[in-house]
Amino acid sequence: MEELVGLREGSSGNPVTLRELFSPCPRIRRGIRDGLEWLKQKLFHVSEDWHLLMTLGVLMALISYAMDFAIGRVVRAHQWLYREIGDSHLLRYLSWTVYPVALTSFSSGFSQSITPFSGGSGIPELKTILTGVVLEDYLDIKNFGAKVVGLTCTLASGSTVFLGKVGPFVHLSVMMAAYLSRVRNKAIRESENDSKQKEMLVAAAAVGVATVFAAPFSGVLFSIEVLSSHYSVWDYWRCFFAATCGALMFRLLPVFNSEQETITTLFKTSFRVDVPFDLPEIFFFVVLGAICGIVSCAYLFCQRTFLGFIRTNWFLSKLLATSKPMYSTLATLILASITYPPGVGRFLASRLSMKEHLDSLFDNNSWALITRNSSPPWPPEPDSQNLWFEWYHPRFTIFGTLAFFLVMKFWMLILATTIPMPAGYFMPVFVFGAAIGRLWGEALSLAFPEGIMAGGVTYPIIPGGYALAGAAAFSGAVTHTISTAILAFELTGQILHALPVLMAVLAANAIAQSCQASFYDGTIIVKKLPYLPWIRGRGIGSHGVIVEHFMNCTITTLAKDMPLEEVVKVVTSTDVAEYPLVESTESQILVGVVRRAQLMQALQTESPSWAPGHQCLQDVLAGGCPMEPITLQLSPETSLHQAHKFFELMNLQSLFVTSRGRAVGFVSWVELKKAISNLTNPPAPK
Amino acid sequence: MEELVGLREGSSGNPVTLRELFSPCPRIRRGIRDGLEWLKQKLFHVSEDWHLLMTLGVLMALISYAMDFAIGRVVRAHQWLYREIGDSHLLRYLSWTVYPVALTSFSSGFSQSITPFSGGSGIPELKTILTGVVLEDYLDIKNFGAKVVGLTCTLASGSTVFLGKVGPFVHLSVMMAAYLSRVRNKAIRESENDSKQKEMLVAAAAVGVATVFAAPFSGVLFSIEVLSSHYSVWDYWRCFFAATCGALMFRLLPVFNSEQETITTLFKTSFRVDVPFDLPEIFFFVVLGAICGIVSCAYLFCQRTFLGFIRTNWFLSKLLATSKPMYSTLATLILASITYPPGVGRFLASRLSMKEHLDSLFDNNSWALITRNSSPPWPPEPDSQNLWFEWYHPRFTIFGTLAFFLVMKFWMLILATTIPMPAGYFMPVFVFGAAIGRLWGEALSLAFPEGIMAGGVTYPIIPGGYALAGAAAFSGAVTHTISTAILAFELTGQILHALPVLMAVLAANAIAQSCQASFYDGTIIVKKLPYLPWIRGRGIGSHGVIVEHFMNCTITTLAKDMPLEEVVKVVTSTDVAEYPLVESTESQILVGVVRRAQLMQALQTESPSWAPGHQCLQDVLAGGCPMEPITLQLSPETSLHQAHKFFELMNLQSLFVTSRGRAVGFVSWVELKKAISNLTNPPAPK
Repeated sequence: MEELVGLREGSSGNPVTLRELFSPCPRIRRGIRDGLEWLKQKLFHVSEDWHLLMTLGVLMALISYAMDFAIGRVVRAHQWLYREIGDSHLLRYLSWTVYPVALTSFSSGFSQSITPFSGGSGIPELKTILTGVVLEDYLDIKNFGAKVVGLTCTLASGSTVFLGKVGPFVHLSVMMAAYLSRVRNKAIRESENDSKQKEMLVAAAAVGVATVFAAPFSGVLFSIEVLSSHYSVWDYWRCFFAATCGALMFRLLPVFNSEQETITTLFKTSFRVDVPFDLPEIFFFVVLGAICGIVSCAYLFCQRTFLGFIRTNWFLSKLLATSKPMYSTLATLILASITYPPGVGRFLASRLSMKEHLDSLFDNNSWALITRNSSPPWPPEPDSQNLWFEWYHPRFTIFGTLAFFLVMKFWMLILATTIPMPAGYFMPVFVFGAAIGRLWGEALSLAFPEGIMAGGVTYPIIPGGYALAGAAAFSGAVTHTISTAILAFELTGQILHALPVLMAVLAANAIAQSCQASFYDGTIIVKKLPYLPWIRGRGIGSHGVIVEHFMNCTITTLAKDMPLEEVVKVVTSTDVAEYPLVESTESQILVGVVRRAQLMQALQTESPSWAPGHQCLQDVLAGGCPMEPITLQLSPETSLHQAHKFFELMNLQSLFVTSRGRAVGFVSWVELKKAISNLTNPPAPK
Repeated sequence: MEELVGLREGSSGNPVTLRELFSPCPRIRRGIRDGLEWLKQKLFHVSEDWHLLMTLGVLMALISYAMDFAIGRVVRAHQWLYREIGDSHLLRYLSWTVYPVALTSFSSGFSQSITPFSGGSGIPELKTILTGVVLEDYLDIKNFGAKVVGLTCTLASGSTVFLGKVGPFVHLSVMMAAYLSRVRNKAIRESENDSKQKEMLVAAAAVGVATVFAAPFSGVLFSIEVLSSHYSVWDYWRCFFAATCGALMFRLLPVFNSEQETITTLFKTSFRVDVPFDLPEIFFFVVLGAICGIVSCAYLFCQRTFLGFIRTNWFLSKLLATSKPMYSTLATLILASITYPPGVGRFLASRLSMKEHLDSLFDNNSWALITRNSSPPWPPEPDSQNLWFEWYHPRFTIFGTLAFFLVMKFWMLILATTIPMPAGYFMPVFVFGAAIGRLWGEALSLAFPEGIMAGGVTYPIIPGGYALAGAAAFSGAVTHTISTAILAFELTGQILHALPVLMAVLAANAIAQSCQASFYDGTIIVKKLPYLPWIRGRGIGSHGVIVEHFMNCTITTLAKDMPLEEVVKVVTSTDVAEYPLVESTESQILVGVVRRAQLMQALQTESPSWAPGHQCLQDVLAGGCPMEPITLQLSPETSLHQAHKFFELMNLQSLFVTSRGRAVGFVSWVELKKAISNLTNPPAPK
């Protein structure tokens, strides 16, 4: 050892330790270490949480794929059972119905027993959460398992129940994001959590949509449109990044699992490229959009009315309150009986799964023209090459089945949405819209069998294009979104019909938005969740309304010089979460906010040392009761529009109004709602 | 007449006037009239200004098409001249160069003589306007003609000058929208104008992009990303509606003019549908994105440095100040000489227009594989079926020409952007990116000539897909946007490469955004326009910074009880637009704001009746000087993040800070900028 040290001592003059010797080139190593440090800092500076976003995307894609895989197996087992059970009608009927009935009743029973929040899609609640309302436990990771299992069972019951995956998956994704950011936040200061967490949640919603449809663009845009009223462009890239990770992973997995050769779209279409549609057809696309808009209004109205009926009807409400699985069983039994293929299901293409429904409806041949001269057989099992045979009936033709499908599914879908289990309502609406479009397109292709003349060549009309437009328009109208148009293109991999589809979606939205609240807003209203309405009635008067006109002037202030007895009287007689604290009873100058809970606690600890008449609130505050400063406030002259924007953008629930420093009132969602509803009816005050 | 009246009198009992008699069925008519009235109200209630949006879209589409038409004619005349002028090199050279030189010098001379705002793209200025800054006359309709004529000349000089249309067209569209809403606003109250006008401007920006590319989706998204930091979902449908009207009209016109059979996309591609790309290729797409990101950083850096050099170099700055057309002439002469086809232009594919550049770069064959064995000819004129022959040189092969194109266009583009005339910089960047992608794709197709194995069949790599990704990634990196990916799909009509293109764009953006300001932000900085930076340094400390730490405490308040002499002294010694008005010198309770101009006027009218020492500001206010109420205010405890959001969302320039009603300071963009720049460097205060 001495010898080793001496080896270098001669050359450098300083003694070299063994450790230095065994780690040669200290400069280069330090350089590399510094470089790595710099790289690390750079990577984690630009966007501290890109790794979280990636984790989120990849995890959700894995879960989505695993769910699809499990569902596929269950559905295949059901098909096998139905096929192999023999020709006895009773056995076949039982095998057809018992399966979904068992699955849905298990789904609703299991998920409801673990968490009461698992029913429905979850998007209305998320919308409420993102506006700043705290719904306790709604994003708790404990509910994750229940929702995953429940959703898998729901989807495994297939096209019988006819429900989708998007809504609950968005909820799942947001739960996961909330969990991940909680884990991360343990290292970060509390004050950052709120804004960071909201960013994560918005990105998570995009991931939810993207990992279901493998559609990053529409995932981001749809989640923006559905969940927010204002959107920060800063969040844009995070959403896109997370959604892309999710979509990529979701499409990679089937390739790794040798199910597919390479990454492709979910519902690949092969529409004619050269002349996809003729100019006059744009008119028919817009008419289709209008039809979808009208039907969506009817659907939304019936859906909300039926939900209301269930809540008021004594028998159904009792059944739902006491035995949710029983209600699920009954509802599913009705649905399954109707879809029994040798029965009424023959006219509903009920042997097809929802994916096959879409695949067949987007078919690029005109069924009406093909079946004019020849009639395709009804194969014993759906023919995977010609799925559309299912839609044909020799006596009623395809028009009969499509129309019957629309009429029946209209109320069946409304019934299905009332079943208390995790389920999405976007996909069924999308399929329903595709059927509307297909019917319209087939009618057109029969009305104009000679098709389009272009450059001396005639091209037949493509009903599949109308199905695409119908799907986008109807789902857009029901959810009040426009990005369903991009979704249609991302799902099919063709963007030929960009303009006509967009016009159909706009027409449908114009009608639906002016007549009905969206599906999600309607649910928020029925479920009585808090919400802040748009300022729609942008009448002449609305800009003249100021806070003074509608603020709530009855506020209970606590003054610093208030005797403690009076404080106790105020605290015990009122029941608000926080009190405005003013300088003195006389001046009423607002200085801060005291939380009721903390004040109560402080009063209790102080109480033994009370000398009546000598102590005032000031002493309690000095004694440790925390006071929060006022960071934002309104003036009586602030306009309604400004106040509304303020509440919406800053995610606030209530604000104090001060005039020259004096607390003169407060405004909360209640006052804003009232002011907005007053706007639309009579001319505005002043 | 008496008789006529008598005719009905018998039956109804009341006398019937002649007018009633000649207008039969009064009930039905009233019903119809009421119905029409209701319909009118309904239509104009849902969205009072959809007709304005439609008008805007249609008008801009007409202008865009008319410009394209005129440009096409001018370019064709140039081509004819160049072709017919004979084989003399001097004459050919002159015919090649004089044309663009004349056009650009006219463009810059004409537009600059009418308005000094016409240079450049206009997007940086619009961005500033949309944040609430008033740039006088920038949106005046007077400038419209100058910009249209200037832009037409710029574009007519073709690929020599290599500039685009988007930026100025967005500016034109916004000008038109401002004009339309001014016309409309004459009927509406003043207070509504601001918010309404902003909505129109945002929609107009979308129309501008949509009518250039016939791409409604990316028009909307690109304009959001480039122009705003926050976006209201309420504006969404207006943007989409206006953009769709514009895009539809823009695509209808060529059909009406019999140029096209039906509505198609601008740069139709025909990539293989079944296996567009293989899984490992995704890695190469991401690498391409990274390359584009790095090149874009270099480009942005050089561009900004060169702009700075021109502003500081005495010769160039003098030239630009005194004789803008001369500078344009010199710069264009350099560019045109280099692109002279028989000279250096041979290696730059300079005979192609920019549209043909894109068409050829998106070609779905692999040029490297084709030219391995055979060498295509250099036709006397570009072959419209095989435009890519222009990119081939027998000695340097396509790799040589593509690389040379990139190197030369890099500095030529930077030179072109300094020419003071209306011109867009998006399209050249898009073409440049496509060339990068093409080069990369061709290299890959040569490196892996056996291509992709899928299902026993081999498919060659498609370099056109890389060109698409490169175009989207490079233009996205330069402008810091993600929606260029959708633009690429909308332009080509195929969305097969959705995932890889999006990943390339994200990779490019990650690099560009962390190293350089975007093209538009860079221009804002160089032009010294006001702007509000992002809060990027989301370090641990940034959430602890509150307004108290950075507000400007030196405010000059006017108290109501101030003697007039003192008021005059204050007003004459300071130079701010408005003064905070406080209750009394002692209390400093903020009650409102007085504009300097109005106060001066009031003081001047009052001055004759002065009784020194007896009058105070209160009297002037009572005498008619208007005082504006305080609608929004900050507290010293408001956090930097909240204040920043506040300024950004409410389009504010400055706000007063009040503590317990007392005016204690103010915050403007200057203070915010300083606070944000302090954030990133040292650890935040406190």
